[in-house]
Amino acid sequence: MVDKLADEAVDKALQGLEGWRRAVERSAIEKSFKFKDFGQAWSFMSRIALLAERMDHHPEWSNVYNRVDITLTTNDAGGISAQDIEMAEKIESFL
Amino acid sequence: MVDKLADEAVDKALQGLEGWRRAVERSAIEKSFKFKDFGQAWSFMSRIALLAERMDHHPEWSNVYNRVDITLTTNDAGGISAQDIEMAEKIESFL
Repeated sequence: MVDKLADEAVDKALQGLEGWRRAVERSAIEKSFKFKDFGQAWSFMSRIALLAERMDHHPEWSNVYNRVDITLTTNDAGGISAQDIEMAEKIESFL
Repeated sequence: MVDKLADEAVDKALQGLEGWRRAVERSAIEKSFKFKDFGQAWSFMSRIALLAERMDHHPEWSNVYNRVDITLTTNDAGGISAQDIEMAEKIESFL
């Protein structure tokens, strides 16, 4: 079981995560990424797929050509957990 | 430039594509796929990514763990083209 983070902890973490923000209608964080083309977008997604399996924590995401939209939340915690923050930080390190 | 298919041609093609249907609010075809886990979903997506590059035609898609939702349309044609039907047929062959 993973604990949901307090709002203050999420706000503090988001200050260090450029472009990440709270989702509007649910307890989650999200960011949109734009690349040169599909190949670059897919390479980025492939690294995240490996990360997701390693963390046993998976994003909700969509892709249209060079664009990747990612939403992170932790169902077991009923909201945003430290796993989501860690995943967002690792995703940023792939850019 | 790719031509948009006539409605009758789309309807006929969809008869041979199990589970594919017209999108509700736009000229596109779509299908949802469910797999055992993320690994299987990702394997399926990886084959489609290679197909997309080979065809130079890319899906709009989203993934949440074991689920993959795919929408196909051809922007240059302003709707559903033969490329979308061909891609849907090839996607089915990956199952």
